[in-house]
Amino acid sequence: MAGEKENVLGITVKKSEDFSEWYNQAVLRAELADYAPIRGFMVIRPNGYAIWEKIQLYFDKVIKGIGVRNAYFPLLIPKSFFEKEAEHAEGFAPELAWIESKGQGNGPEAEERVAIRPTSETIIYDSYSKWIRSWRDLPLRMNQWCNVLRWEVKQTKLFLRTREFLWQEGHCVYAAKEECDREVRLILDEYRKLAEDVLAIPVIAGVKTDSEKFAGALYTTTIEALMPDGRALQMGTSHNLGQGFAKSFGLKFLGENGKEQLPWQSSWGFSTRLIGAVVMVHGDDKGLVLPPRIASHKAVIVPIVFGDSKEVVLAKAKQVANELEQFNVFVDGRDNYSAGWKFNEWELKGIPLRIEVGPKDIGKKQVVVVRRDTGKKEFVPEKELKRRMGEILDEMHKDMFAKAKKFLDSNIVEAADYPSFKKAIEERKLVSCWFCCEAEAEGKIKEETGATSRCIPLDWKEGNGKCFFTGKPATKKVLFARAY
Amino acid sequence: MAGEKENVLGITVKKSEDFSEWYNQAVLRAELADYAPIRGFMVIRPNGYAIWEKIQLYFDKVIKGIGVRNAYFPLLIPKSFFEKEAEHAEGFAPELAWIESKGQGNGPEAEERVAIRPTSETIIYDSYSKWIRSWRDLPLRMNQWCNVLRWEVKQTKLFLRTREFLWQEGHCVYAAKEECDREVRLILDEYRKLAEDVLAIPVIAGVKTDSEKFAGALYTTTIEALMPDGRALQMGTSHNLGQGFAKSFGLKFLGENGKEQLPWQSSWGFSTRLIGAVVMVHGDDKGLVLPPRIASHKAVIVPIVFGDSKEVVLAKAKQVANELEQFNVFVDGRDNYSAGWKFNEWELKGIPLRIEVGPKDIGKKQVVVVRRDTGKKEFVPEKELKRRMGEILDEMHKDMFAKAKKFLDSNIVEAADYPSFKKAIEERKLVSCWFCCEAEAEGKIKEETGATSRCIPLDWKEGNGKCFFTGKPATKKVLFARAY
Repeated sequence: MAGEKENVLGITVKKSEDFSEWYNQAVLRAELADYAPIRGFMVIRPNGYAIWEKIQLYFDKVIKGIGVRNAYFPLLIPKSFFEKEAEHAEGFAPELAWIESKGQGNGPEAEERVAIRPTSETIIYDSYSKWIRSWRDLPLRMNQWCNVLRWEVKQTKLFLRTREFLWQEGHCVYAAKEECDREVRLILDEYRKLAEDVLAIPVIAGVKTDSEKFAGALYTTTIEALMPDGRALQMGTSHNLGQGFAKSFGLKFLGENGKEQLPWQSSWGFSTRLIGAVVMVHGDDKGLVLPPRIASHKAVIVPIVFGDSKEVVLAKAKQVANELEQFNVFVDGRDNYSAGWKFNEWELKGIPLRIEVGPKDIGKKQVVVVRRDTGKKEFVPEKELKRRMGEILDEMHKDMFAKAKKFLDSNIVEAADYPSFKKAIEERKLVSCWFCCEAEAEGKIKEETGATSRCIPLDWKEGNGKCFFTGKPATKKVLFARAY
Repeated sequence: MAGEKENVLGITVKKSEDFSEWYNQAVLRAELADYAPIRGFMVIRPNGYAIWEKIQLYFDKVIKGIGVRNAYFPLLIPKSFFEKEAEHAEGFAPELAWIESKGQGNGPEAEERVAIRPTSETIIYDSYSKWIRSWRDLPLRMNQWCNVLRWEVKQTKLFLRTREFLWQEGHCVYAAKEECDREVRLILDEYRKLAEDVLAIPVIAGVKTDSEKFAGALYTTTIEALMPDGRALQMGTSHNLGQGFAKSFGLKFLGENGKEQLPWQSSWGFSTRLIGAVVMVHGDDKGLVLPPRIASHKAVIVPIVFGDSKEVVLAKAKQVANELEQFNVFVDGRDNYSAGWKFNEWELKGIPLRIEVGPKDIGKKQVVVVRRDTGKKEFVPEKELKRRMGEILDEMHKDMFAKAKKFLDSNIVEAADYPSFKKAIEERKLVSCWFCCEAEAEGKIKEETGATSRCIPLDWKEGNGKCFFTGKPATKKVLFARAY
């Protein structure tokens, strides 16, 4: 019976040979998600949702620490709201799902037409306009964890691009631009920490060009990661919305000087696509490799049973699991599966460490610890296990990050002209180049190469260069890539 | 300026005189929620959402402890799914919101018609039918925290009846009816504990009559509370769905005996209406009274400043707040508001305890602790504060529960015939009576009195009585009331 299942359990293609198929199989077979009966939608299964919960737990604490409070705003947004901020309206119109009829036959005539939120700026700022009166009400910082819907026409992909997804959207209001700018960056840096320190995914933080900024924003900052197939993935964005939404939605406040003023606003979000990034960046031919800090279970204990050792081994396995309670370790004590089958299953599902407990090890008062990412085995004395396990998990995080960082760094190339740019894009690189940042040029580049500008990295200084595409003077170096 | 605000801050009607208006003002002015721009929708503001988070935190731990895992299923459900289980379809059809057009003009012709979930049985069981193969996959226990939409035609009311609301919906699958029955009751008992031990709201647990059961269920269990205006409020329901959905959605499993079998299913849920119940049951003319176990901040410290004592008093207040960190206590150190104004504000918002720190108290090494529910003042030596505060919060919980329990118990009356039933309903009582449980009788009673059967309480034994309405033999005593 184990043999039978083994055939369908594993991933049948190599990550290096058919990345897209490998990804789909990894997500489906590790039971992170499944396809839904409606095209472009997905079901997030418990293994996948547990990762989202870990991300939420971490980040919710971060934002509460900086004074953000959670709230919940309606799913449906009136048509007139989309029309108030022109750029925003234009940006989202193609992706809206409108409600046709409601309840007992009331058609759209009966009440104003409504659409499912693709993002909530408009409906939140309508409320803010009622709540904000004076400078004492500022800064106002709120966030919501919710579902949003964008009726994508592009090919959808589990976690990375689905018509409905889960996310957090933060919405803050400030009296002054400087404060708004500062917190836009603060959030971006928290996103960077989430990606790097929790998910072990290195990112490049930067500012979007005008063509790629959020519809209605003054400017957009972003963190971008590089996937193994050479495509960039936007991991989170933090926008300074300027005063445009405030103007459109009637937000104003009485300043300390007694004068009525327009506030400054920010919004920021990341979504369940982060789960897809984790799979892509860290997974291997055997399946998932979960970064230790988001793994619900840091280790699985597999009892190695020979002859009549079963009872002794199982008892020891349970004792070890109890001692490692802080790591949420569990024993796979199933009778009807071989140890090898269990190894395969938990490798597929990406549990960071496997602990083997066998009769010989018991005699030596030790266990075997195997790292999922490297397969490295280590004999650890029982006495030292708790301490050593913490260390191994930390080493594993660092090594996983370092490996991904090396890949990122070694795939950034410079291009001074369009031919070398095109060559680099074909070679699936992140391409760094002086760019005039004109929208028309960017449009043509996208059309001809499929590459989009990802960001103007924050840590790159302005200078004087020549645009690789138009030959015009350029002050900024921009990163381009094909993207998810 | 304080004076100005004071006029609009407080609640302008008495709870005993205009309960409905009092409730709306309490919710709005304590900033738990606000009306949304679309009729029948609401915005849950941070003060309200914080209560929901406390409820989630508590209950999520409970269900994980019994093996339930969280997941997330799509917002939209195909039309054909609603049609598979006939009773279910009929029950929800009047409240569905259908999607009209999506994205770039694709009308409903392009793909199957879809509606926003009013509950997720159908779409979840479609997935379950793919995931469940053998007895080894059972029991399967999942839950999702999400938004649902029911296009109510009844008058909506903040938290209690809104077209969109947040809830949890649990969906379990079992091999045997007995196991399903047992866990349906287990969840109901966890709901009872949540209501009573966390929200301090006493409830009656029982089974719904067939007329009031969930559309498509074998039977529905419920916990019912009594609001101060004599209306019952359903606080949570736990359904045994029987095998009907399994049949309709093709769920089956290979039993240990090697034969294909239909599984048994349960579903269970409670929603953000619990927040409305908390306001109604515990609030008073000054505003909210939060049960201590769901209050984010267990106490506010108000510094009482005379003359030049400001620095000393503020320093002491902060010191006390630090010592009470585990209770998430904060200092209201605002300059431009009087102590009296602060008292009013935190009473309106329902913070369980107020701690006053003044120059005299500092001299005596004590603070004043004032309970929100009773207004009772207590001088507590600084040294004993941490311990004593825990005690006071526990006493407060018990007293709030006891008060509500007394109200509930004293408002249950017996009725042997229809005239006395009608009189009791007019007097806003929970009416206990022998009832034949026939749907037609129940329909007439509802039509003529506005009362519905709330439940057949679990702790009442079956017997032999005469139906108060039809005069037919009746084996069950049923509770009736007007309800939210």
